[in-house]
Parts: sequence; structure tokens; C-alpha cells
Amino acid sequence: MYESYWQKKGDETTVVIPGWQFMSYFSDATRLCWFLEPEFAKQIVRLHNVVGNAVTENRHIVVGTGSTQLFQAALYALSPCAEAEPISVVSAAPYYSSYPLITDCLKSRLYKWAGDARSFSKNGPYIELVTSPNNPDGFARRSVVNGSEGILIHDLAYYWPQYTPISSRANYDLMLFTVSKSTGHAGMRIGWALVKDEDVARKMTKYIEINTIGVSKDSQVRAAKVLKVISDNIEGPNEGDSFFEFSYRVMAKRWKQLREAVQQSGLFSVSDFPPQLCMFLNRVFEPQPAFAWIKCEGDIEDCESFLRGKKILTRGGKHFGVSPKYVRISMLDRDKNYETFVRRLSTIRS
Amino acid sequence: MYESYWQKKGDETTVVIPGWQFMSYFSDATRLCWFLEPEFAKQIVRLHNVVGNAVTENRHIVVGTGSTQLFQAALYALSPCAEAEPISVVSAAPYYSSYPLITDCLKSRLYKWAGDARSFSKNGPYIELVTSPNNPDGFARRSVVNGSEGILIHDLAYYWPQYTPISSRANYDLMLFTVSKSTGHAGMRIGWALVKDEDVARKMTKYIEINTIGVSKDSQVRAAKVLKVISDNIEGPNEGDSFFEFSYRVMAKRWKQLREAVQQSGLFSVSDFPPQLCMFLNRVFEPQPAFAWIKCEGDIEDCESFLRGKKILTRGGKHFGVSPKYVRISMLDRDKNYETFVRRLSTIRS
Repeated sequence: MYESYWQKKGDETTVVIPGWQFMSYFSDATRLCWFLEPEFAKQIVRLHNVVGNAVTENRHIVVGTGSTQLFQAALYALSPCAEAEPISVVSAAPYYSSYPLITDCLKSRLYKWAGDARSFSKNGPYIELVTSPNNPDGFARRSVVNGSEGILIHDLAYYWPQYTPISSRANYDLMLFTVSKSTGHAGMRIGWALVKDEDVARKMTKYIEINTIGVSKDSQVRAAKVLKVISDNIEGPNEGDSFFEFSYRVMAKRWKQLREAVQQSGLFSVSDFPPQLCMFLNRVFEPQPAFAWIKCEGDIEDCESFLRGKKILTRGGKHFGVSPKYVRISMLDRDKNYETFVRRLSTIRS
Repeated sequence: MYESYWQKKGDETTVVIPGWQFMSYFSDATRLCWFLEPEFAKQIVRLHNVVGNAVTENRHIVVGTGSTQLFQAALYALSPCAEAEPISVVSAAPYYSSYPLITDCLKSRLYKWAGDARSFSKNGPYIELVTSPNNPDGFARRSVVNGSEGILIHDLAYYWPQYTPISSRANYDLMLFTVSKSTGHAGMRIGWALVKDEDVARKMTKYIEINTIGVSKDSQVRAAKVLKVISDNIEGPNEGDSFFEFSYRVMAKRWKQLREAVQQSGLFSVSDFPPQLCMFLNRVFEPQPAFAWIKCEGDIEDCESFLRGKKILTRGGKHFGVSPKYVRISMLDRDKNYETFVRRLSTIRS
């Protein structure tokens, strides 16, 4: 979906890397996160300040091979070492379907997936994942467990103005971001964490050292360039041509098409979101999430199978810890695929 | 150390990546390893065929964020799912110091580090890591455990003609390689596995999907270019200018300097290696490993501390499962640092 914007920008975001550059494991040996490219760190801080979506002051930046790796680094860093039992990891359903898979992949004795945060009532320490806006349903979220020993990880992959009004600068202890959702460059496998506590940032860095001995320099260099072009264009004379204006407009158009298709069909429903003022775009709008979270109304129990029969590929609610009457569909596919999807959806009758 | 070769090659290995390219998670959805760039796969096969160091026929290629991630992917893929107890992971001492750290990092219930393969005698299945040439001591290796249920992982990071004579094409079930040791591009974080069994390759791919949702496209594209230039130069008219001729000569010079320094000092010893015919370089030579594995002779018990006092930073034998009389030193540092090291070493007296 974002491809056409970057095509239009032409050579502005092209990177050129000679064969003898970025050969070392190290980016800056004096930094806590020694494999973080300084220019990328600079552009991360700059973009957050330009957009106003996260506090960067007094934060350590840890770069990861996507935010997926950073999530694991956070689990490693936040798990108590001395405990006999693994710490519980929870998130309110519907939650990102990969969280349980990632958490339990290696059957760690440090942590284990404990399901829906809303039904979690165990005493003692726990880790709660707060994804806001949420994947899959797009709602803004806060922590829901009412325990005194909770440690929070905020996954803010979708807290960008094309998806949701930026109402304030997020100011949490551990925040995760990724280029795949902010700029569309999933193939780079680049994410970053803003971490308040130095010891936690150090342990996260240690995990990434053990797991992959750092993060691709080439992709960090390219990500730095992409972030720089976004900030340059926002601060430049053609503000209306900025990346977030472009992507906001595409998302607005797609959500309009989706709601029309849902109405035409009559078999499905999607949530309404309360409109809010976006401090960055300086306008009031309803969230327009990166995923559509669709409910099959009426008798259809297995919405994923039903839609597969109509040649629409989705992921069913069960993966997200809720009823199979729900499905998740990406709103970020290429134009042609998206058009096909809404056309097919709109013509489904009972 | 390899920087000057790549500088000399100039623009030949430069990559140019426009902002709109390689945005997707996918490289080739029809492949078993769906995040492997086809051009990189092609250049891997080509280079192995040109050098003659590994069989690529009937092998699946899995790309990883360095061979470190592939090692973990292999542990995940080879661990029996149904076992009550974690499978033992062993390697003959001295072994690569990161193996125990990586294996036990998350306290997995799937596998656990069980130390020196030579003293391993437990019944039942186990995983043995065979690093050949070995890190840290440079010797060619075979598996040493005499069990019937052993599963082998061959780490062949150093099986390239600048380090050791290529005597035959390695032909094992699971072989790991990495650009950091073959071409010197550690910052790319790119490794690859050649895997005979389809199911194992599939599970390794699954692990990398869960761990990092694939591998940086930018670095794969760059690695493909670097491998291509190496093969092109070997097959071209200026064979004497090839990467392996260059790196062979640098290593030969450095090992000569090292042996002279060791002799001048009289306090240390390094192993002699039996000379062998290299089928690729078509000459007989002694292995010239990427690390010097130095023993403090006489009364010095803690060689690492002793050398630290002489301003030489090393890693002590304990990390590799053996006596602190041994230390490991990289032979791949920049020219200037290497010269300083041998000068300092040569002047140490008791």
C-alpha cells in the first residue's frame, strides 16, 4: 500500500552501500546498545518529536530485528531470574495471535503465556502486553489487570497518524515500534524500543546479542534514510505531500470502502470508533486501523471458513483468543488486492 | 582485515536500493524458506560449487540473521517435541564460548547445554555440535560422542580456503555458514544453512518466522552481490586477484608473524597443524585459523589476566570449557591492531 508513495519520492530514499562499509559487528562501542547505528538513533528521536507520538527524553533506544525480536528481548529482560516458576505473560483478548506462539515457542522456564488478561487473577508478578491501537481490533488500550506487581510492555506499532489520532505523547516505561507498520518497510526487519530503565535496556541488548549478535547494519542505514525523508517532508514546504498525509488519505478511503461493503452485504459488522483530535494532523477523525476486525452476524459460527468459501483469506478469532465469529483482515494490501477484497465482501449475501 | 580488499574492488560490490523496493515480508512465497531472496540462494549455490567446500545438491537453503540464529533454529527443529526431559546439547571442548550461553539463554524445556562432548555418556538422543575448523583452536573435527541416537549440527563457518585447505566437499545433514567469516561482512548479520531433511528445514524456517519474521532483505541483497563478485573474480581472467587468494595471503603472513612472536617471547605456545592439499587453491598448506589459540607455558595459570596486564585483550580458556592457561585471540582484526598485538606479544618475557 505504501509502495506508491515511495515510488513517487524517487531517488530521495535510495541508499547506496559500498562493499567495504558497515562490515563490523559494532556500530558504536561506547553506547549501551552497541549495535545501534547512531544516524538511525538520531532519526528515531527526530521522527517521534516531529509526530509527537512518544516521549524520547531519558529513554534508551534498543534496535531489534523487527519489534518481534524486541518483544522477546523485553520478556528476557523483565523476567525475574530467581523465581522457581515462570512469570505469567498476559494480554487482553482479542490479542495479537503471535504473542502466545512467540512466548511459548521454546517452552522457557523464565516466562509462559497465561492468556487473556481480563480473566487473569493469579497473585504475584506478571507481564502484561498492552497493544495500542490494538491488533486485531484497532481500539486504544490501557492495562486491564488490577495487580500490584504487573510489568507492562506497550506495543505501539500502530500509534501513527495514518491509523489513529495522535492525542498525546506516549510516556510508558517500555514502548515498541517498527518500520513495517510506520513506513511500510516490513522487509527491513527493523524495530526499536524506547526504554526508561537502564538495566532493562542493557538486558534487552544482551538478549539481542545472544540471539543474533546485533541487527543488520544495512537495514538500519536504510531505515534511517526513510525516517529522515519522512521528517524532512513534514518540515519542508510541501507539508501536504507528507508521508502521513498520503497514508492517512489512503486509509480513510479504504475504511470508507470497507464500511460501504459491509453495509451492502448486510452479513457482517465492524466497530465504530469514537472520533478524536489528532494533534499532529490537526483534525478530528475516527481511527482507521491497519486491520479490519469483522464479525459475521447471524448464524455463521466459523467466519474464517465461510469467507474462505468466498475466496477471502482471513485469520479467525480463535487465534486471537476470542470467538470464531470474528476474523481479521489486513487493510494494508496492495491497491488491486484491496479492491478485489471489498468487491467480494460487498456481494456476499446470506 | 578484509576491508582493504573490498575497498580495492571499488564500486563492483556497491548496492543501490530504492525506497520502494524489498518492502514486503515475502521474498518468494512458493519456496520452503519464503523469506530467502532467490538471487542470494543462487549465489550461495554458485559459490559453494566454485570453491568446492560443500555439497548443495538435494539441500534446502534456510537463511538466518547470522549463523547464530540458525543454530537456534536447528536446536528448535531437532529437539524431540514429546520428550519429558530437554535433549542434551554437547560439543567437544574447547568449544565456541557462545554455544552454552545461547543454548541456556531462555532456560528452554526443549534442550539444555550438557557440556564437553568427550565426557558425555548419557543414553538416548542428544545433539552434538561439530565446528570444523574448530572455534577456538582451529583443528578439523569429527563427531566424538559414540551414541546411536546422536543428531549432528556441523558449524562450517571457517571452512573456507583462507583458513584451511579445502580437502573435500562437506556432505553433512545440517551445515551452517555465515558471511561474517567467509567474506568479512559481520555487520550484515547473514548466515545460511544447507539442510538435507525437508521437515527439519521447514521447522528451522518456522523458528525464524516466530523469532524475527524472516531476515533483512537489504542484507540478503547485499550478501548476494558480495558472493557474486567473489565468484565472478575467481572465474574471471584475474584469478590471482581473487578474494580467497588475497585473504589466504593475509592469513599466511599473520600466522608467520604470530609464530615468530611466540618464538621470540618464549612464554607461549601455539599448535602446529598438519599441512594438506587444498583442492581449491591447488597447493599444500597448513591451516591458518581465524583465531590464535595460545597456551601460557610455565607457571602462569590465568593467561587472560596475565595478557591483560600486558595490554592484550583475549578470552580465557574457561569460557571454552578448558584450562585458563589457554586464551583465544582474533586473527581478523584490522592491520594496525594486529601489528600492535604481535609486537606486544613478542616482547613479553618471564
